[in-house]
Amino acid sequence: MEEIRIIELKQSVFEDNKKDAQNLRERLKKEKTFLLNLMSSPGSGKTTTLLKLAKELDGKVEWAVMEADIDSAVDAETMRNAGVRSIQLHTGGMCHLDADMTRQGLAGLDTENLDLVILENVGNLVCPAEFDTGAVKNMTILSVPEGHDKPLKYPLMYETCHLLVINKIDVMEYFDFDQEKVVEYAKMRNPEIDIIFISAKTGEGIPELAEWILKNVKEWNQ
Amino acid sequence: MEEIRIIELKQSVFEDNKKDAQNLRERLKKEKTFLLNLMSSPGSGKTTTLLKLAKELDGKVEWAVMEADIDSAVDAETMRNAGVRSIQLHTGGMCHLDADMTRQGLAGLDTENLDLVILENVGNLVCPAEFDTGAVKNMTILSVPEGHDKPLKYPLMYETCHLLVINKIDVMEYFDFDQEKVVEYAKMRNPEIDIIFISAKTGEGIPELAEWILKNVKEWNQ
Repeated sequence: MEEIRIIELKQSVFEDNKKDAQNLRERLKKEKTFLLNLMSSPGSGKTTTLLKLAKELDGKVEWAVMEADIDSAVDAETMRNAGVRSIQLHTGGMCHLDADMTRQGLAGLDTENLDLVILENVGNLVCPAEFDTGAVKNMTILSVPEGHDKPLKYPLMYETCHLLVINKIDVMEYFDFDQEKVVEYAKMRNPEIDIIFISAKTGEGIPELAEWILKNVKEWNQ
Repeated sequence: MEEIRIIELKQSVFEDNKKDAQNLRERLKKEKTFLLNLMSSPGSGKTTTLLKLAKELDGKVEWAVMEADIDSAVDAETMRNAGVRSIQLHTGGMCHLDADMTRQGLAGLDTENLDLVILENVGNLVCPAEFDTGAVKNMTILSVPEGHDKPLKYPLMYETCHLLVINKIDVMEYFDFDQEKVVEYAKMRNPEIDIIFISAKTGEGIPELAEWILKNVKEWNQ
């Protein structure tokens, strides 16, 4: 099997990340490529969700995944073994990606022929939310075992996301997770946020999530 | 009920955090106060573990908790309502605490009369591991739903910790969590790391964890 492509990201030299991110978005608009920035805590199920999504997305869009990690290539290998086009980005200890780092990653993909790129950001609820990556939309996954209070503790993550996915609903009964409260807290941070409940394990809610993504890709790429 | 004391931390002015942390440790040695730095992902059960620990520690040591958070005072309120002496530290968006910020927090406690202070760091597996807080020991919690691969993805966290607590073992059967692998991966990062399995929900393993802490407090404060 071919080796996973690993890109060692360099620290960005651009001072104005906001402007840089805007430039990247404009380029992606011209290329008709939708970039989705996926953020969450470590272990909330980003990779498993992408694996399940593959079954819904394959054949409907040309897509690829960029797996950002401090050090390992575990996630890109997992995606590749499932037949998903993927590259691994190494942040060299950095806890986030900015627009220039994202651009370095995109250079490893043939974006002109891609409708959709999903960036799996570093597992972290703080730093990734502070940097505009140039993505068209941001989504975050909150898993049931983490608790429904996360929007209270990590406001910026919820303020910057267009979609909140609540994962691991198959284990809801074993945890004290209040579904009404999590919606209330998330909407408190961002009244416009969309919320979809899923189980990446059983596949529940995955078609709805795929539909949300495909609708957004279509709107962007038309 | 009295108001929760909230300390808004200021950005540190010290350039050499390592030296500053060493100075703080020396001060704590003289004061016979053991500082334990508790780190983990968001939602792995730091606060719940502390609540359960309270029942084992109360009466055996004079102790207090510093709850560090980006914004909210949820955790300090929870601890206070359970009768644990606690203060809330606000990092103002920063994803970590360094030694000077920790010192600012300690100034809000009467450490001369405390044997043990537990610092609940910001929920994050990346940034907190990069800064020496001046703590005598570092511990991290990994909860079963997060998966056994975390030591592969967040090497520095496991390299800097003296104790790894595996939490939520009561839901082990609902997740694909390999207990042998997590031990193997953690020891790969740090052969000296102690590992204790607990359930903060049922209380399993909490006496063993309390014993580990009390032993370390005793050694430091004698």
